[in-house]
Amino acid sequence: MSATEPVRVAVIGTGMIGQDHIRRLSTVLSGARVVAVNDVDPARSAEVAAGVGATPYASGEEAIAATDVDAVVVTSWGGSHEQYVVASIAAGKPVFCEKPLADTVEACTRILGAEVAHGSRLVQVGFMRRYDPAYRAMKEVVDSGRIGDPLIMHCGHRNPSVPGYYTKESAIVDTAVHEIDLVRWLFGEEIAAVRVLTPRKSKNGGELQDPLLVLFEMAGGAIVDVEVSVNIRYGYDIRGEIVGEDGTVSLADSGPVTVRHNGSYSGRVPADWRERFIRAYDIELQEWVDGVAAGQPAAGPSSWDGCAAQAVADAGLAALASAERVVVTLPERPALYA
Amino acid sequence: MSATEPVRVAVIGTGMIGQDHIRRLSTVLSGARVVAVNDVDPARSAEVAAGVGATPYASGEEAIAATDVDAVVVTSWGGSHEQYVVASIAAGKPVFCEKPLADTVEACTRILGAEVAHGSRLVQVGFMRRYDPAYRAMKEVVDSGRIGDPLIMHCGHRNPSVPGYYTKESAIVDTAVHEIDLVRWLFGEEIAAVRVLTPRKSKNGGELQDPLLVLFEMAGGAIVDVEVSVNIRYGYDIRGEIVGEDGTVSLADSGPVTVRHNGSYSGRVPADWRERFIRAYDIELQEWVDGVAAGQPAAGPSSWDGCAAQAVADAGLAALASAERVVVTLPERPALYA
Amino acid sequence: MSATEPVRVAVIGTGMIGQDHIRRLSTVLSGARVVAVNDVDPARSAEVAAGVGATPYASGEEAIAATDVDAVVVTSWGGSHEQYVVASIAAGKPVFCEKPLADTVEACTRILGAEVAHGSRLVQVGFMRRYDPAYRAMKEVVDSGRIGDPLIMHCGHRNPSVPGYYTKESAIVDTAVHEIDLVRWLFGEEIAAVRVLTPRKSKNGGELQDPLLVLFEMAGGAIVDVEVSVNIRYGYDIRGEIVGEDGTVSLADSGPVTVRHNGSYSGRVPADWRERFIRAYDIELQEWVDGVAAGQPAAGPSSWDGCAAQAVADAGLAALASAERVVVTLPERPALYA
Amino acid sequence: MSATEPVRVAVIGTGMIGQDHIRRLSTVLSGARVVAVNDVDPARSAEVAAGVGATPYASGEEAIAATDVDAVVVTSWGGSHEQYVVASIAAGKPVFCEKPLADTVEACTRILGAEVAHGSRLVQVGFMRRYDPAYRAMKEVVDSGRIGDPLIMHCGHRNPSVPGYYTKESAIVDTAVHEIDLVRWLFGEEIAAVRVLTPRKSKNGGELQDPLLVLFEMAGGAIVDVEVSVNIRYGYDIRGEIVGEDGTVSLADSGPVTVRHNGSYSGRVPADWRERFIRAYDIELQEWVDGVAAGQPAAGPSSWDGCAAQAVADAGLAALASAERVVVTLPERPALYA
Repeated sequence: MSATEPVRVAVIGTGMIGQDHIRRLSTVLSGARVVAVNDVDPARSAEVAAGVGATPYASGEEAIAATDVDAVVVTSWGGSHEQYVVASIAAGKPVFCEKPLADTVEACTRILGAEVAHGSRLVQVGFMRRYDPAYRAMKEVVDSGRIGDPLIMHCGHRNPSVPGYYTKESAIVDTAVHEIDLVRWLFGEEIAAVRVLTPRKSKNGGELQDPLLVLFEMAGGAIVDVEVSVNIRYGYDIRGEIVGEDGTVSLADSGPVTVRHNGSYSGRVPADWRERFIRAYDIELQEWVDGVAAGQPAAGPSSWDGCAAQAVADAGLAALASAERVVVTLPERPALYA
Repeated sequence: MSATEPVRVAVIGTGMIGQDHIRRLSTVLSGARVVAVNDVDPARSAEVAAGVGATPYASGEEAIAATDVDAVVVTSWGGSHEQYVVASIAAGKPVFCEKPLADTVEACTRILGAEVAHGSRLVQVGFMRRYDPAYRAMKEVVDSGRIGDPLIMHCGHRNPSVPGYYTKESAIVDTAVHEIDLVRWLFGEEIAAVRVLTPRKSKNGGELQDPLLVLFEMAGGAIVDVEVSVNIRYGYDIRGEIVGEDGTVSLADSGPVTVRHNGSYSGRVPADWRERFIRAYDIELQEWVDGVAAGQPAAGPSSWDGCAAQAVADAGLAALASAERVVVTLPERPALYA
Repeated sequence: MSATEPVRVAVIGTGMIGQDHIRRLSTVLSGARVVAVNDVDPARSAEVAAGVGATPYASGEEAIAATDVDAVVVTSWGGSHEQYVVASIAAGKPVFCEKPLADTVEACTRILGAEVAHGSRLVQVGFMRRYDPAYRAMKEVVDSGRIGDPLIMHCGHRNPSVPGYYTKESAIVDTAVHEIDLVRWLFGEEIAAVRVLTPRKSKNGGELQDPLLVLFEMAGGAIVDVEVSVNIRYGYDIRGEIVGEDGTVSLADSGPVTVRHNGSYSGRVPADWRERFIRAYDIELQEWVDGVAAGQPAAGPSSWDGCAAQAVADAGLAALASAERVVVTLPERPALYA
Repeated sequence: MSATEPVRVAVIGTGMIGQDHIRRLSTVLSGARVVAVNDVDPARSAEVAAGVGATPYASGEEAIAATDVDAVVVTSWGGSHEQYVVASIAAGKPVFCEKPLADTVEACTRILGAEVAHGSRLVQVGFMRRYDPAYRAMKEVVDSGRIGDPLIMHCGHRNPSVPGYYTKESAIVDTAVHEIDLVRWLFGEEIAAVRVLTPRKSKNGGELQDPLLVLFEMAGGAIVDVEVSVNIRYGYDIRGEIVGEDGTVSLADSGPVTVRHNGSYSGRVPADWRERFIRAYDIELQEWVDGVAAGQPAAGPSSWDGCAAQAVADAGLAALASAERVVVTLPERPALYA
C-alpha cells in the first residue's frame, strides 16, 4: 500500500478513444493525472484540456517533451502512431499506444529498433483483451496444465452491426486483430499461417463479405478458427473455447442474473464492446499506471506483439484476397522481447 | 390411439448393435416383435433367437423372405448391407439399415436403383442423431426463421477414447459421418466440398492423427467446421452451434442436476455415446415401427441420404489424404427422393 | 433380454389420465396390453375399449376379476380408489393406483390392512416424480454422500395457471402433495410437522391464496421449504435444491438448446406438466409393467407412501387453516413396508 | 468529465476493514486521498498513516475535526461508531460508516436525531451489496415491472467456514444482516416480522446452530426465506431469486469460464466474500467519493437504513431465542428519509 504522487500523463489524440482514456485516467483510475493534451484539431484539444485542467499543446512532440509529463498515451489515428511512439522513446518516457502499433510491419520494425537502442521496454500496445477477467481465467486454466496441451481453439467475434465505413479488410485489421493478439498470448507462440474462408453473405451486411471464417495455424501446430460475424444483430458476443488434450476451457455466458419469463430462462448478452470490455480497459490502464509509478519496464503487450500482430494481419489480408493459405513473414525477434 | 398387431421383425446380424436393437424391439418399444434372426455365426444366431423366442435362419435372405416377417433390420457388417437391403426391397418389405447404407457409392447407387424400380420408399438408414431431442429442437429453431438463414455451423465430436482398431480413416467414415448426415438434414442441402486440417496430435492418441478439423462447404455457401477429438478423456461430448444472420442456436449442456461441491458448480458430461444418444435410438426405431405398422413409406433418412453421406465421406478421405479441398461428386438424385 | 407374453391390464376409470395411461400402455411401452376397461360412463368405457380392442365391463370389480386380466391400473376419481385397490388385492393382482391412494388416512389404513393380510406388496401408488431422471440423479448424489447429510431442501412448484375449480386446498392436496412424497423419498424419512405461510396474493390468482410457502420439518430435523406458485404465467417450472453439510445438488435448467437472439441467450421452460414429466410417467409405468411381468412384488411408491402422503396433506390443510405448526399424525407402519 | 481536487479522507479505525478501505482509497479509486488516521492502537495508527503519507491523530474526534479533512470513513469497532458518526455530523462532514451504524436501535435513533437536526443527509452506511452489479441488475428487473410485483424471495447465504468467535447470534447480526438490508432495498419496504427455524445441525459447525432458515414478512405481505449455512465448505455462495407474479429473477452463476474435465463441465464458486464482493466495495466507495466531491447529500444506504437493519436484527435475535414469530418495532421514520 502506498500513496505516491500521481503519474502525469500526456494524451496525444482526443477522438473517441482518446477522450475515453482521459475520462478513465481522470475519474476512474487511481494514481494518474492528465496534464498535457494534443490533437490535430486545436479547438478540440483546447476544449478537452480545459475539461481536466490540462495544458493543450500545438504538437504531440511538444506534449511528449513537456517536463511535467511522466508518460504518454497515444490515441491518435493509426498512421501517426509511429512518430509519437518514437518521440516518446527518444524522450525516455513510457508510452501506451492504442492498436495498431503502426500501420506497416516496416514502421513497427523501426519502433522495435528504437526501443532496442534504448535498452529496455518503454512501449505497451493496447490489446486490452489480455486484461479481461474471463480471458485471464482461461489462460490460467491452460497454463495450469489441467486440460493438457492446447490443440485447437474456437473463437467467435460477433458484433450486432458495423458502421458504414467498415470494409471487407476491416474484418481482419479491426476485428480479427483482437484474436490475433489473443491467441499468440494464450498459446504463447506465434501464428505461422492464415487462411480465410468466405461463407454465404448475411443479408444484414449488404455487399460486405460477412461472416468470415479465419483459420490460424500456430507455430507449434495448433489450429484456431475464428468466426467473424459483424452484423449478427442479437448482441456483442465474444465466444472462445480452447480444446486441450484432456479437456477444454471456454468463456462462460456472463449475464449477472437469470430472468424466467414468458416461456424461457434467459441472460443478457452485452450490447456492445463497451459493455463487454469496459473492465478490461480499466484494468489494462490501471496496471500500466501502476507500473509506470513503480518505475518498472512495460509489462503488457510489447512492441514485438504489435509488430507480430501487424504481420499476421498482413497475411490475413493476403489470404482474404487470394483465398489461399498464406504464410506469415515475421522479422527477427530482438532479444529484448524474449 | 390404436392397438394393432405387433410388427414382426427379422434382424440380420447379431453383433453388438444387432443385439441392442433386438433388446430395444423386445423390451423397450411398443408394437414390435423379433421373429427371425440371422448371423454369420450360426451358434450366436441360435442363441440370440432363443432369447426372444425367434427363429434362427441359415441365411439373411431366408429370414427376409420368411412369410411371418413384416420388416427387416440390417445390422450385419457394412460390406453385406447392400445384399440384404436389396433382398428386402425385392421382397417388398420395409428395411431399416444401420449406417453405412453400403460401403461404396456404387453399391448405394444400386440400392437407389432397386428402390426406384420398386416405386416407393422402403429403406431407412440409421442416422439416429436426427431423432435426438436436442437436435430436433435445434432444427425447429432454424426452420422457424427466428435466427435468420444459417451461415455457419460449429460442431464438436468428442470421444473420451477409441479402440485399437480405430484408424486415421475412421475419423471420417465412423465419426464425422454423423455430422455429414446431420448438417445435410439441418441445412436442407447437400455438402459441396470438403477440407480436412490436421492440428498437432494429442498425446492421448499415439500415432493417430487426432484431433482433426473437418470443413464442409454447403451447396448454398454456408460453411461447417467439425472438430473431431476422439481421445479427449473427459467425456463423450457432442457440441454444435448454428450461426444464423440474426442469432444462433446451440446444443445446451444437458446434465440433469447441478452439484455445488469443492469450489465449483458442475454438471455431468455423458460417459459414452450410449448415455448421450440412447433416447435417439429408441425414438428412431419406435417411429420406424409405427410407420411400418401404419403402412406408410419410410420417412426417416433415405437411401439417398445414405448415398450422399457415402459420397461426402469419400471426398473427406481424399481431402484427408491430400490436404486439399475436394469437391463432392454426387450421382444424380432420383425424383423419388425430392 | 426376454420376450415374455404381454401383461394384460384392466384400466378402471377412463378420464383424461386413464386414457393417457391406456395410450401409454398400448403405443409407447413394451410388454403390456389393455384388455379390460371400466368407467362410470358406460358409453365412454365402450368407446375407449373399442379403440384398443379391449372388453368394456359394467363394473370395476368385474374388470378386475376377469380371468384374462393380470394387473390393474386405477385411474378413477379419488373417492373410489379404495374399493378398486382392495378388490385388486382380494384378487391377488398387482395394482397401480394413481394418487391419492384413497381420500382419507382411514381408507388408506384399510388398504394397508388388506395388503398386509395378503402378505406381500401388490400396490403401487402413482407418485411419478420418483421416476424423473433429474430427481433420480439428485437422489443418487444425496445417497452417494458427496454433499454430506442433507439439512435443508428448497422446492419450487410453479404452474402457469390453474383451472377454475382449483381451490385453496388444492394447493396442498393436488400440488404440494408431489413434494410431500418426493421429500419423504429423497430424505428417506417421514415428515414430522407442517407450517404454511401465506404471502401477499398474486393478481393472477384472483381470490385464490396464491402463492404459498409450505414448510416441512423432517423426522430427523431437516427443513424443507416449498414455494407453491400456481399462476406464475411464464411456464411450468419445477425447482429443487438439497443443501447438504458440504455442498448442494439442484435441478438444472433443462432446455435442450440455447438460443442467442435479441439481446439474450435463453432456454425453454416447459409449458406444462406433460412436457416436464412425460418421461417420468413412461418410465414409471414401464418399470411397473416389467416388475409385474417378472412376477416381482411392487417396488415403487407403496401403500404406506400413499398413506403417509395423505396424513401429511391432512396436516398441511390444518396448517393452512390455522396458520399454526401442525404435527403429522401417522398410523403405525406395518413391517411389510420397512 | 472533470478533474477536481481529491477528496481528503480521515479513516477512524485501522483494523482489517479499515486498512482495506485505505488501500482502496489510495490505490484503486479515483479522486480520494487518505490524509488522517486514528486507531485505538497508536502504534498501528502511526504505521498505517506513514504508509500513505497521512497524519496519525490521537483521537478520532481530532482526526474528524482536522481542517484538511473533507470526509470521514468509520471502520472502528461497532460500539464506537455512534460517537464518530455524531462527531462527523457535528463537524458537518460526510461520513461513511461501516455496518452496523451503531450497536443498538437507541444509538441509531440518536444519530438520526443529529442528522435531522443538521438538516440534510451526511451519513452513508456500508451495506455494500446494493452496489454489486448482479444485485443491481436484479433490482432493475424488479423495478421494470417485467416479472410483476414481487411476492416471495429465496436467499442463500453460504460461507465455507466461520472463525472460532462466531456465535449463534452472529448468524443474525453479522450474516443475515446483509439480507436484512438487501430485501428492504429490493422490495422498497420495511420488514414487519421475523421467524427463525433451526434445522438439524451440520457436523461442520460443531456446537453452532448451523444452518438456519430465517423468514421475513415484508410490510406489504411478501415473504423472504434466507438460508444461512456458514460451514458449507464448498465455497462462498450467495444465492437469490425474487419470485414475482409473472416471472422470477435470480442471481446467475458467475464463473467467467467453463472447464470441461474429468466427466463434468464446471464453473468456479467464489472462495470468500472478498472474491465475491470486491467490486461491490470498490463501486460503493467510488460512488461515495464522487458524491462527496460533487457536494451532494449522501445517496447510499442511510442512517435510517442502518437503524431499521438494527431493529430487524434485534427482532431476529429474539426470534432465534424464542422460536416464535417476532414483530419488528421501528422508531418513527423522520421525513428526511422519506
